[in-house]
Amino acid sequence: MREFDLLNHIYAANSTLESRVLLPPGDDMGMVRLASKSGTVLAAVDQIVDGRHFRLATTPIELIGRKAITRSLSDIAAMAAQPLATLVAATLPPDFGHERANALFDAMRATADRYYCPLIGGDLAFHADPSHPLVCSVTVLAEPVNERIAKRSDANRGQGVYITGRLGGSLQPGGLGRHLTFEPRIDAAIELLKALGDRLGAMIDISDGLGRDASHIAELSRIRMVLNADRIPCNDGCDWKRAFSDGEDYELCFTASGEVPQKVAGVEITRIGEVKPRDAKDDRLVVVEVDGKAIDAAELGWEHRNG
Amino acid sequence: MREFDLLNHIYAANSTLESRVLLPPGDDMGMVRLASKSGTVLAAVDQIVDGRHFRLATTPIELIGRKAITRSLSDIAAMAAQPLATLVAATLPPDFGHERANALFDAMRATADRYYCPLIGGDLAFHADPSHPLVCSVTVLAEPVNERIAKRSDANRGQGVYITGRLGGSLQPGGLGRHLTFEPRIDAAIELLKALGDRLGAMIDISDGLGRDASHIAELSRIRMVLNADRIPCNDGCDWKRAFSDGEDYELCFTASGEVPQKVAGVEITRIGEVKPRDAKDDRLVVVEVDGKAIDAAELGWEHRNG
Repeated sequence: MREFDLLNHIYAANSTLESRVLLPPGDDMGMVRLASKSGTVLAAVDQIVDGRHFRLATTPIELIGRKAITRSLSDIAAMAAQPLATLVAATLPPDFGHERANALFDAMRATADRYYCPLIGGDLAFHADPSHPLVCSVTVLAEPVNERIAKRSDANRGQGVYITGRLGGSLQPGGLGRHLTFEPRIDAAIELLKALGDRLGAMIDISDGLGRDASHIAELSRIRMVLNADRIPCNDGCDWKRAFSDGEDYELCFTASGEVPQKVAGVEITRIGEVKPRDAKDDRLVVVEVDGKAIDAAELGWEHRNG
Repeated sequence: MREFDLLNHIYAANSTLESRVLLPPGDDMGMVRLASKSGTVLAAVDQIVDGRHFRLATTPIELIGRKAITRSLSDIAAMAAQPLATLVAATLPPDFGHERANALFDAMRATADRYYCPLIGGDLAFHADPSHPLVCSVTVLAEPVNERIAKRSDANRGQGVYITGRLGGSLQPGGLGRHLTFEPRIDAAIELLKALGDRLGAMIDISDGLGRDASHIAELSRIRMVLNADRIPCNDGCDWKRAFSDGEDYELCFTASGEVPQKVAGVEITRIGEVKPRDAKDDRLVVVEVDGKAIDAAELGWEHRNG
């Protein structure tokens, strides 16, 4: 049972969407139009589970709270949207303790505040058994900037493919790892949207590895991507394969036409490939060119997988 | 460690709220003003956990999905607001199975659709161990009707205290129980808001028992409530004590001035008491008059408690 198959079921069966739903499930966030006013709101939910996304036994509680929030904020970045508000639900083991619970919520609130996405709701429940793991789900609300958002389906042939920052090594064993301390690229995304306007194409955040996430853009935009392994900027000690396999980078992958700034909001931008039309003779959505060979990048991805 | 103590910590520490937060955590929903437009959005999150709010082993999966959604919809009713959109996060045991996962999400989507609150986002994660319990968190978005909402802090002395429907017996052993099949009182709440206008005071949904929930209104409105045990309409086989102790009724308790309809949206409305000013000689927030004695109702409530 793989997450993506199940999520596809959720998206596919969404048959009774009303006209107010401007963006159904399947992108980084959903979007609705308000009935009473002309405003629109984006929303997304993400969750972290002990033993899957962190280890309660070894991870400082402040970094667990931080990651719970920043993972969802990264979805706001991926739409190039403006943070609006945060809601948190946590299920705690019954022996979790008052002090740790307060520290967890304090860290979540502080992180939400830091990114101008204040906490407006929370729910707390307790497991029946102390062996049951901490689960935190975080919902974020956001607003479009200049009435535009960067959808996964907005890539067009002829555009370049870009990423923010560097990839690989987020789960570095022994250390705390960038998957706990990364900066959601909200400012960079909004600057790109403002600088590029309609030249900005599709955007996604890289949580499951570059190959798998780029494939989501290729699939929904009905295009093909050709990436160049040599051009992918990697973190120290990582090669391009780690950029595809490690996941949890929370950098942005996007497509754009014309000139693109080399740096936005202090973050370097690197062109790593091109958007191509679909190829009738080759159904691979994203290929990586390495030493003159084209490798299927979708197979290099990483997924929170059931055993 | 009790939920309410911890939630109070969350609310109390909320110091950096920005001007956009129109209603901070502590009511049935939070509310924010959009930056770009004049619209406002309400949001709330609630969760259900196997072994706490249902039993996966004995409860039909469709009713689990239904309850996950209706619990959150009941928060929309408690604000007398209009449903806008739903987001769902579920953490499943790794051996949960594709078919049951699909059935769960189908039930959640169908319930959300039925109440005009379409699913716009979802997240799915798997536990590391098959013994870990199913957790579903559901966020709902809503909009004010006629630019008004019914806050917990809106009760005023001289108003009557009312409830919709009948109380008690929701967890009836042996049967499936109203806690799984209740109707969120959205239509009734909106009809009341439209009928009463500014005469509608505070409102809350009864999830933890009448005494405890009425106390939240009394506390936030800085008033005192005097309820009459004889007037409380109870479900078959229940006396007034069950109305205070059983919980999970998901009826509405509200305050209002002047004439109040006896029935709205097919649901009977009963006056059960009065809003009084605080009493310097008696700090009990809600008392129930029984046989000429006044009992402290806050002590009769029910809470999802850590053993």
